Amino acid sequence: MQEKTVVAVDAMGGDNAPGEIVKGALDAIAKRGDIKVMLVGKPEAMEKELSGVSYAKEQMEIIEASEVIETAEPPVMAIRKKKDSSIVVAMNLLKEGKADAFVSAGNSGAILVGGQVIVGRIRGIERAPLAPLIPTEKGVSLLIDCGANVDARPSHLVQFARMGSIYMEHVMGVSNPRVAIVNIGAEEEKGNALVKETFPLLKECDDINFIGSIEARDIPSGAADVIVCEAFVGNVILKLYEGLSSTLIGVIKQGLMSTLRSKIGAALALPALKNTLKAFDATEYGGAPLLGLRGLVVKTHGSAKAREVTNAILQCVTFKEQAINDKIKENILQIQEEKE
Amino acid sequence: MQEKTVVAVDAMGGDNAPGEIVKGALDAIAKRGDIKVMLVGKPEAMEKELSGVSYAKEQMEIIEASEVIETAEPPVMAIRKKKDSSIVVAMNLLKEGKADAFVSAGNSGAILVGGQVIVGRIRGIERAPLAPLIPTEKGVSLLIDCGANVDARPSHLVQFARMGSIYMEHVMGVSNPRVAIVNIGAEEEKGNALVKETFPLLKECDDINFIGSIEARDIPSGAADVIVCEAFVGNVILKLYEGLSSTLIGVIKQGLMSTLRSKIGAALALPALKNTLKAFDATEYGGAPLLGLRGLVVKTHGSAKAREVTNAILQCVTFKEQAINDKIKENILQIQEEKE
Repeated sequence: MQEKTVVAVDAMGGDNAPGEIVKGALDAIAKRGDIKVMLVGKPEAMEKELSGVSYAKEQMEIIEASEVIETAEPPVMAIRKKKDSSIVVAMNLLKEGKADAFVSAGNSGAILVGGQVIVGRIRGIERAPLAPLIPTEKGVSLLIDCGANVDARPSHLVQFARMGSIYMEHVMGVSNPRVAIVNIGAEEEKGNALVKETFPLLKECDDINFIGSIEARDIPSGAADVIVCEAFVGNVILKLYEGLSSTLIGVIKQGLMSTLRSKIGAALALPALKNTLKAFDATEYGGAPLLGLRGLVVKTHGSAKAREVTNAILQCVTFKEQAINDKIKENILQIQEEKE
Repeated sequence: MQEKTVVAVDAMGGDNAPGEIVKGALDAIAKRGDIKVMLVGKPEAMEKELSGVSYAKEQMEIIEASEVIETAEPPVMAIRKKKDSSIVVAMNLLKEGKADAFVSAGNSGAILVGGQVIVGRIRGIERAPLAPLIPTEKGVSLLIDCGANVDARPSHLVQFARMGSIYMEHVMGVSNPRVAIVNIGAEEEKGNALVKETFPLLKECDDINFIGSIEARDIPSGAADVIVCEAFVGNVILKLYEGLSSTLIGVIKQGLMSTLRSKIGAALALPALKNTLKAFDATEYGGAPLLGLRGLVVKTHGSAKAREVTNAILQCVTFKEQAINDKIKENILQIQEEKE
């Protein structure tokens, strides 16, 4: 019998919890028999969503957690005080080896803090970045870091570049991925203090394919595979991507409905158009992994719906199969050995 | 006879200089008789573009400048050494009162440095921000700062908020403009060190309508009129806006051409669609003013073509008519008086 990937799922986190989260978990176990979900949260809330639904009972376990960490709560305090919150309980399952992975749409800061404090970083990793895949004209690029830990140091960004490169090569199958740092000009002398300090360090890394600076205007065309930046900038890029795509698609629909002639045209063109635009829908790509932790933690959008939760759970299987964390450990060891 | 607005134009700056710049200047004087352009640059280059073209000679003056500041040149050194560059010569015209305004598509850093060193800041203004208008679902918002001076301090951001508010109220006619600071969450406790320090200062300003944090995803829908951020983040927003809009429009065209049915639809729908998308074209909005300088300096995109140059020149007339700089001076004086 094949070993199941066990995924702890935070039933209480995100704008659409618990309804969409539970639905996403049910869809994931329906899709693949080799997944087991541990659904963590308030029992009455979860049972309400599960009642009357038929599913494979051996693929779903209910884990009780009496507390919930809210979106606006200060993360450090929340992780420390709410020992019986869904996030803390699930992360302990991961730490104890009862689960392989953890998926949550909850408080980003709490997930990052909990990841570092409860699950723990790989030895040698200074900070665990949140690294979503963003759609481009050519496919997808990894945007690293979009986490809640802002004001990064140059050494953090160098590790982000290395981990991102491993992820794109071994999970996404991009050979020799192009790594670039987000900057306000293509020239080496441009940038803020952080970028100016980081640039020469990245140039020295012979284990990555560093192609220099990337201006934000060149991200959507897919000019780099791994896009390195600190978390404030990464957040701005990720959220502007979402906002601008949805606004433009709205504007386009309005344009198509503005004249009778264009309405007829729209009726003919929309099916093909929808397929193309789907490629630019960030929710298609499921969750973003926190890289550099001892266990796999995947954060989905706060606004995640069932489909995104399902995709995030499925992603855990690939991540485990590809043994990404072992590859990161090897890379760090190698760098340390070279230094000695 | 009506007084002309005299605009010095950098014929040598930008990717498409001198051809598109000269063409833009010619179009501007053809459109309005109350503009006089002082075209600054290498005489042979400018004359080549003007030869054989008929235009109102009294609306165009050729000003010789033997040097050019290149895009990649370190700004401070360039302004200091290249005394006979088009940027320095034109800024001196502004300083001496021979020109009312200066338009350039050249080296952003040099324009910012020259603006501060040659033209000079309004007394009390600590830093002159570059403030382009960006398209939104509801119209346009002012993005302040997108300049080359990164790593700003909280007091800079407070002045940006004030100047931006004046601009949107008096140039764009938005009454009581909503001012927001770019952040990675809506909550006051989120953000990097700069945002956390600036937030309470903005809350205290009773001369602006501060509505709190804005996440990048809410910028395209027009959730604020004045969007305050430091220049690195502003640059990322501006350039991602440009890049993502153009990529999405490309993707949409591809989608429309993918099937025979959609091709027929596209032929019917495209004219209406083009009109709608035009509203999302940043080049429609001409140049971005450097606010807070004693004279008016307008920076257009490095990739500016004739239409954008024309719009930037026309914008100078409005800016002069509305006496924006006098309003900024009054505001600064008032704040100082209140403090005393």
